Amino acid sequence: MEDNKNAVVLSSGGMDSTTAMAIARDEGFDIFSLSFFYGQRHVFELSAAKKIAEIFGAIRHLVINIDLAKIGGSALTDEIEVPKNRKKSEMKYEIPVTYVPARNTIFLSYAIAWAEVLETSHIFIGVNAIDYSGYPDCRQEYIEAFEKMANLATKSGVTGKTRLKIRTPLLKMTKAQIIQKGMELGIDYGITHSCYDPSSEGIACGQCDSCILRKKGFMDAGVDDPTKYSPIKK
Amino acid sequence: MEDNKNAVVLSSGGMDSTTAMAIARDEGFDIFSLSFFYGQRHVFELSAAKKIAEIFGAIRHLVINIDLAKIGGSALTDEIEVPKNRKKSEMKYEIPVTYVPARNTIFLSYAIAWAEVLETSHIFIGVNAIDYSGYPDCRQEYIEAFEKMANLATKSGVTGKTRLKIRTPLLKMTKAQIIQKGMELGIDYGITHSCYDPSSEGIACGQCDSCILRKKGFMDAGVDDPTKYSPIKK
Repeated sequence: MEDNKNAVVLSSGGMDSTTAMAIARDEGFDIFSLSFFYGQRHVFELSAAKKIAEIFGAIRHLVINIDLAKIGGSALTDEIEVPKNRKKSEMKYEIPVTYVPARNTIFLSYAIAWAEVLETSHIFIGVNAIDYSGYPDCRQEYIEAFEKMANLATKSGVTGKTRLKIRTPLLKMTKAQIIQKGMELGIDYGITHSCYDPSSEGIACGQCDSCILRKKGFMDAGVDDPTKYSPIKK
Repeated sequence: MEDNKNAVVLSSGGMDSTTAMAIARDEGFDIFSLSFFYGQRHVFELSAAKKIAEIFGAIRHLVINIDLAKIGGSALTDEIEVPKNRKKSEMKYEIPVTYVPARNTIFLSYAIAWAEVLETSHIFIGVNAIDYSGYPDCRQEYIEAFEKMANLATKSGVTGKTRLKIRTPLLKMTKAQIIQKGMELGIDYGITHSCYDPSSEGIACGQCDSCILRKKGFMDAGVDDPTKYSPIKK
């Protein structure tokens, strides 16, 4: 059966999901942007996500409230301190306290529900297993297992009307390659927000895993970093 | 590593999840009861779930608000009419409009997040693939795929500290067998709520799939049905 050209795109307001959205748009998809408010400390990402959905002409931008804070267990939702100045080499071998239990699984579960209602088979998620923070739910084997489960879980998967595809265009790209791809597609990364621990004005800390990966990405890509960082505290 | 005796039990306030909770309790687990408010029309199930958690001495009863109504696509959350008086034989071959897209996947995703925080590996869900309404996410192959995905998704699954197990003690039981098991374990089914379309006072309609399966279950089990049903409208 002919598939429509709708795509659900998970959007955090950060660099990776914005690049994934640009790639979906470039492939000719109409964008249904999906963001989550999960009690995260850095709500600035949500206003970035809204702006980004507008820029890409999203047909709808849905913000789902989820009660992850009730469940707890993460520095991103709890009063646990965000680690600073970890070396990139440390990130691969230790799952950090910023890990939110089952976050991508919860996000993707909502995405497949929405995809089913929209009768689309394409879900884009900007996970990356190269320059990443060591989260288990960013790996290819996880995404493959999720896709398999999703096609057993849903009406569309069972009836064969649409086969859900979890699209991960950034999975094997370095941060520098992601930035280069995004620049080609005309993204202004100045509007994206990555920091795990921004100031009350939304200024990036420059020292959390996410900021470190972002800075290094721009450096490696040979591109000026448009991000404003807080002055480093000695 | 020694596993603790905590279990997350998904509780809808209905017969099946209550029986699953009784089985978990009988196996010596401490109960962490997990319910969802998802804009369902039949909120009576939530007050039943709370009462049931108290009866089983749950350590915590968590109600998560989820925005399924925003996504739409189901008679249980939308203004679509709940089908009445379907024959049991019809239920197996057609996914009904009461199907909520990806519901069990969303529920189980929250459950694995909570299990991870509680450091437990046991999640009980009262799905049943015999006397059921034809939902794809009640089948064994779905549950197996979810479990596999869950163990790739989570920190606990990756570190091998705890291996998540999705426990489905009712999967292959008939409704009558479920009722017999529950009676052995001392459940008063009068407090459980199953109807998809109750009256404003919470009285079961007696005609939706869920009521039909419930009535037939009591009949087949040879047990008096404690449920109060609305008089049938001709």
